[in-house]
Amino acid sequence: MSNEELENLFDSLWPLNRSLTGDSNRKTLKILSEKMPLEITEVDSGTKCFDWEVPSEWNVREAYISDSNGKRLIDFGNNNLHLVGYSICVDTVMNFDELDEQLHYIESHPDWIPYKTTYYKRDWGFCLSYNQYIGLDRNAKYHVVIDSTLDEHGSMTYGEVNIEGESDELILLSTYICHPSMANNELSGPLVTTLLYETLSQTKPFYSYKFLFIPETIGCIYYLSKHLAYLKKHIIAGLVVTTIGDDAPFNYKRSRRGDAAVDRAAELVLSQSSHQYYIHDFYPWGSDERQYCSPGVNLPVGSLMRSSYEVYQEYHTSADDKNFISFSAMQQSAMVYLNILELIQANRTYTNVLPYGEPQLGKRNLFPNADNNLKDVDLEAIMWILNLADGNNDLINIVSKSGLDYKQIVEMAILLQNRGLLK
Amino acid sequence: MSNEELENLFDSLWPLNRSLTGDSNRKTLKILSEKMPLEITEVDSGTKCFDWEVPSEWNVREAYISDSNGKRLIDFGNNNLHLVGYSICVDTVMNFDELDEQLHYIESHPDWIPYKTTYYKRDWGFCLSYNQYIGLDRNAKYHVVIDSTLDEHGSMTYGEVNIEGESDELILLSTYICHPSMANNELSGPLVTTLLYETLSQTKPFYSYKFLFIPETIGCIYYLSKHLAYLKKHIIAGLVVTTIGDDAPFNYKRSRRGDAAVDRAAELVLSQSSHQYYIHDFYPWGSDERQYCSPGVNLPVGSLMRSSYEVYQEYHTSADDKNFISFSAMQQSAMVYLNILELIQANRTYTNVLPYGEPQLGKRNLFPNADNNLKDVDLEAIMWILNLADGNNDLINIVSKSGLDYKQIVEMAILLQNRGLLK
Amino acid sequence: MSNEELENLFDSLWPLNRSLTGDSNRKTLKILSEKMPLEITEVDSGTKCFDWEVPSEWNVREAYISDSNGKRLIDFGNNNLHLVGYSICVDTVMNFDELDEQLHYIESHPDWIPYKTTYYKRDWGFCLSYNQYIGLDRNAKYHVVIDSTLDEHGSMTYGEVNIEGESDELILLSTYICHPSMANNELSGPLVTTLLYETLSQTKPFYSYKFLFIPETIGCIYYLSKHLAYLKKHIIAGLVVTTIGDDAPFNYKRSRRGDAAVDRAAELVLSQSSHQYYIHDFYPWGSDERQYCSPGVNLPVGSLMRSSYEVYQEYHTSADDKNFISFSAMQQSAMVYLNILELIQANRTYTNVLPYGEPQLGKRNLFPNADNNLKDVDLEAIMWILNLADGNNDLINIVSKSGLDYKQIVEMAILLQNRGLLK
Repeated sequence: MSNEELENLFDSLWPLNRSLTGDSNRKTLKILSEKMPLEITEVDSGTKCFDWEVPSEWNVREAYISDSNGKRLIDFGNNNLHLVGYSICVDTVMNFDELDEQLHYIESHPDWIPYKTTYYKRDWGFCLSYNQYIGLDRNAKYHVVIDSTLDEHGSMTYGEVNIEGESDELILLSTYICHPSMANNELSGPLVTTLLYETLSQTKPFYSYKFLFIPETIGCIYYLSKHLAYLKKHIIAGLVVTTIGDDAPFNYKRSRRGDAAVDRAAELVLSQSSHQYYIHDFYPWGSDERQYCSPGVNLPVGSLMRSSYEVYQEYHTSADDKNFISFSAMQQSAMVYLNILELIQANRTYTNVLPYGEPQLGKRNLFPNADNNLKDVDLEAIMWILNLADGNNDLINIVSKSGLDYKQIVEMAILLQNRGLLK
Repeated sequence: MSNEELENLFDSLWPLNRSLTGDSNRKTLKILSEKMPLEITEVDSGTKCFDWEVPSEWNVREAYISDSNGKRLIDFGNNNLHLVGYSICVDTVMNFDELDEQLHYIESHPDWIPYKTTYYKRDWGFCLSYNQYIGLDRNAKYHVVIDSTLDEHGSMTYGEVNIEGESDELILLSTYICHPSMANNELSGPLVTTLLYETLSQTKPFYSYKFLFIPETIGCIYYLSKHLAYLKKHIIAGLVVTTIGDDAPFNYKRSRRGDAAVDRAAELVLSQSSHQYYIHDFYPWGSDERQYCSPGVNLPVGSLMRSSYEVYQEYHTSADDKNFISFSAMQQSAMVYLNILELIQANRTYTNVLPYGEPQLGKRNLFPNADNNLKDVDLEAIMWILNLADGNNDLINIVSKSGLDYKQIVEMAILLQNRGLLK
Repeated sequence: MSNEELENLFDSLWPLNRSLTGDSNRKTLKILSEKMPLEITEVDSGTKCFDWEVPSEWNVREAYISDSNGKRLIDFGNNNLHLVGYSICVDTVMNFDELDEQLHYIESHPDWIPYKTTYYKRDWGFCLSYNQYIGLDRNAKYHVVIDSTLDEHGSMTYGEVNIEGESDELILLSTYICHPSMANNELSGPLVTTLLYETLSQTKPFYSYKFLFIPETIGCIYYLSKHLAYLKKHIIAGLVVTTIGDDAPFNYKRSRRGDAAVDRAAELVLSQSSHQYYIHDFYPWGSDERQYCSPGVNLPVGSLMRSSYEVYQEYHTSADDKNFISFSAMQQSAMVYLNILELIQANRTYTNVLPYGEPQLGKRNLFPNADNNLKDVDLEAIMWILNLADGNNDLINIVSKSGLDYKQIVEMAILLQNRGLLK
């Protein structure tokens, strides 16, 4: 996708009132389905999964606070952040003091509307800017209307798509679709994931891919509960794609294992890139890596972010909007993801078939010369690979120990394999 | 005990001529028995233990050097450091040159009397200040009297007391009673150990405690020789309490294992305290940790000191006196010990009983709110514990990896256990 | 050998036109045989070894480029570097442009003759200084004569000598004899190795020694192919002796294992010496450690160098001559080698036979006193050894953990073994 196409996709997804469940989620997945053949699954409300239960389906027709003249002061129709997520149905008149208890605002950022939810407690509320809040007449009566449904016979919706590789070992790319109009968290996640699908689906990869577009936490927990044995058997690497849309330095959060292939690949690719970056050990809060890295699951899943959740002030507010992100930053983010995935795809634990002394490179035309276009650094890569390919070092380790560019090592490993020197 | 009570205890123990054996040791243990129900053991002189033998019992009635007028120039009655420990019985007249070979002094500290012993070689000697030494008439005759007994039918005396916990796994606190009038080395050791007993005996701990008051080296070796299998089976942590009475920074010396629970707990507690401290890898000299950490014993026993032996000039001299130590420093030292013991007592290797994804904290009222008085940092602690409680991390490791205050982790672990989330 | 004898040996070896094979190699080994009882082996050309084949034997009678007047402009008789190694037989007249394609020179060092070979490709060439090169008449005709033989019924020659120790476990010292007139690379290697033999053959070592004088790469590969199982079974340490003749700091290159006894011994000895030094992790280029450390061989063989190959500009040129090296530097290099070998020879994994508590040192006269000449640092060494001799730490580890001088530890370990305290 060009930046323009990406922006069009962003604009079509932006206004939808995504939440854990509901028609906006279905519509989101339908729009994304135009870019890839998503398989959509509906999970009945009330379905048990591990310690959790899929919630009732929530939909909103309209919601507002009006004054005694019927003038709408706060209207969900203007910004879906105005309504606390999973607010129950309300139609009542109350004075300011009663209303005040249901209002959320940010005094330090008087123009911003905060984002709040009440998923697992039956409640309701409105979010508004502090400027709006101080403009409310303390002595007036207010009409509060929330025309929402919480349907215990509804369902939760998610999408997935695979790319079949030569191997049934899997690389997982997981992102979430449960936040209304916010840009870095969350639209950058589905958008960059879509960019990745677009590029990767044009390849015939070695390892297969699975892309998940799920509601955060409950979606992930449901998916794990349904497919745990399969995922534990097949997933060799995974990444949670989130908060990846702005120009900030990259932040890679390691999997709980800490030294999984994805952890070593991400660190090497970032260290060999020109981007500024930080590496973080796993910590047990954040996005769905919390579930993938829970102690009984413990999959090799990390997360590559830019401005990571909770460290940018705009997080979970109306200020996390189109101005906060950039489409060229997302293209760049996708490129870093693709480089990491390229290295993981190339990763094998090779064995040198001529391990006793060095193979004679000259007679195999593997010494750099004018004929074979090999350079001195190619010879260095060849020697590192042949020396370390003892069945104990994967290619990522060889990159790391050699200090050479990963592309050099990958290219020469393929050459040596083609020449029958590696298996 | 208040500082005043502690000082009274100090004053009553100070004048006793403790050594490897003898009535002063019995009297020391008797005085300590007023504070705790010490079980006293007598071990016959000549008893073999590993490579050693319990020495004859030594007692001194009087000892002095007098001039030809009968005037006592150096008198054991003034300071029991004047007599070399384990000096044999002597009653003889000699000239200065003969006497000179039996005298010990410190030229660089002309006011201090050194402390010397001759435990395993039949010999005798006097220690005196350099000022006293230069005052001796080089041409005079001297009468030397040592009225001591070395009884091969005597015994060595030690004391021990236990606090029974829920588990028969043991925490060992070992200190020594074999030095005459010196304050930091050694009275600070028995005094702080008595403070620890006083506090800990008021609790019903999980792990049991054993407190040992033994002569250094031979007492420890005897005890190990008698109880080795039992100690190896039951001791999970131990500390040698020594040179812990002054205001110097704390010095923690690791056990030979280096990463035992006591080593990790001591380092964490010190790092989270406001005290200045140093951590030292095990080295094979010092106090009884040498025996506990000998290669065939190798118990998880470290040592927490302040001015550690041999690094302070006053060590093994008459200057290691009441002015060198302070009773409030000892109270503070005891507090640090108690904090370390608190963390060791709380240490378990928990398993999260809901390890697949996160447990739903909301429905368990484990999200911070006004009701449950939990704070955000409690939630952090909860998430770290649940994530790392996989049967491979003990609680001390979780403290270390989380970077949180150990009290936070301990408190939340107990909460989670009570809620049935950990086992 | 004195410096003078060493210089005489250097002078007699210098002019020989060593290569992979040939009479100059035989003569080199014959001269070295005057210093030690070398066993000489001839390996038929064409012999297969792993991925390689022993090349045809190369000998040169004469080689030159003359002008139309018969005046020799470039003459192998003046410097054997003028002829590219393994040049085929040529007798032809050509113009400058044709000749130019066969010439090698170094523009940046106009006085130096480079060193080139064409071992495995039938070709020929001349090396000359850039000054000589620019002096050649571009319009003249040249007579090129190379009177060489490449005999496929010839052989490759190498030498070896052993010193039998008490154990059949082996320490390998490997150097190479395949370069014509160059001083640091290579004559310093055979010369220092000869110094080592001279000293070590006067001892009755514990571990046996094997000294190899082989053509680089193909000689090593042949030797490994013939003796691999034996070498893998017996070699406990090895060093490749190369580029060890100048005053530069020492460079120790670790074996592929990285923590072999030789690696730890070399680093300790260097760190306790007054020499400047650098430690390098293994890398898969260099000299014959490439073969010893190939993945299927993986012997504990490192290399101690001074100005290592390829980092000094004079490498593989006529400027690597007698001025570049010094005989007293070689003596010093040999001394460092001997220190490392001394520590490896002393290395054992001892077990303390009295591991329960400390042995009573006093009754064994192991406390420092006037009688036994032991010093305080000896006692420290004794305590470290007794504490760590648990069957898991070799002596080199004990040196490392104690921080004491390795000679101290070695001496006290022997004392303790003699006293029956270690086995």
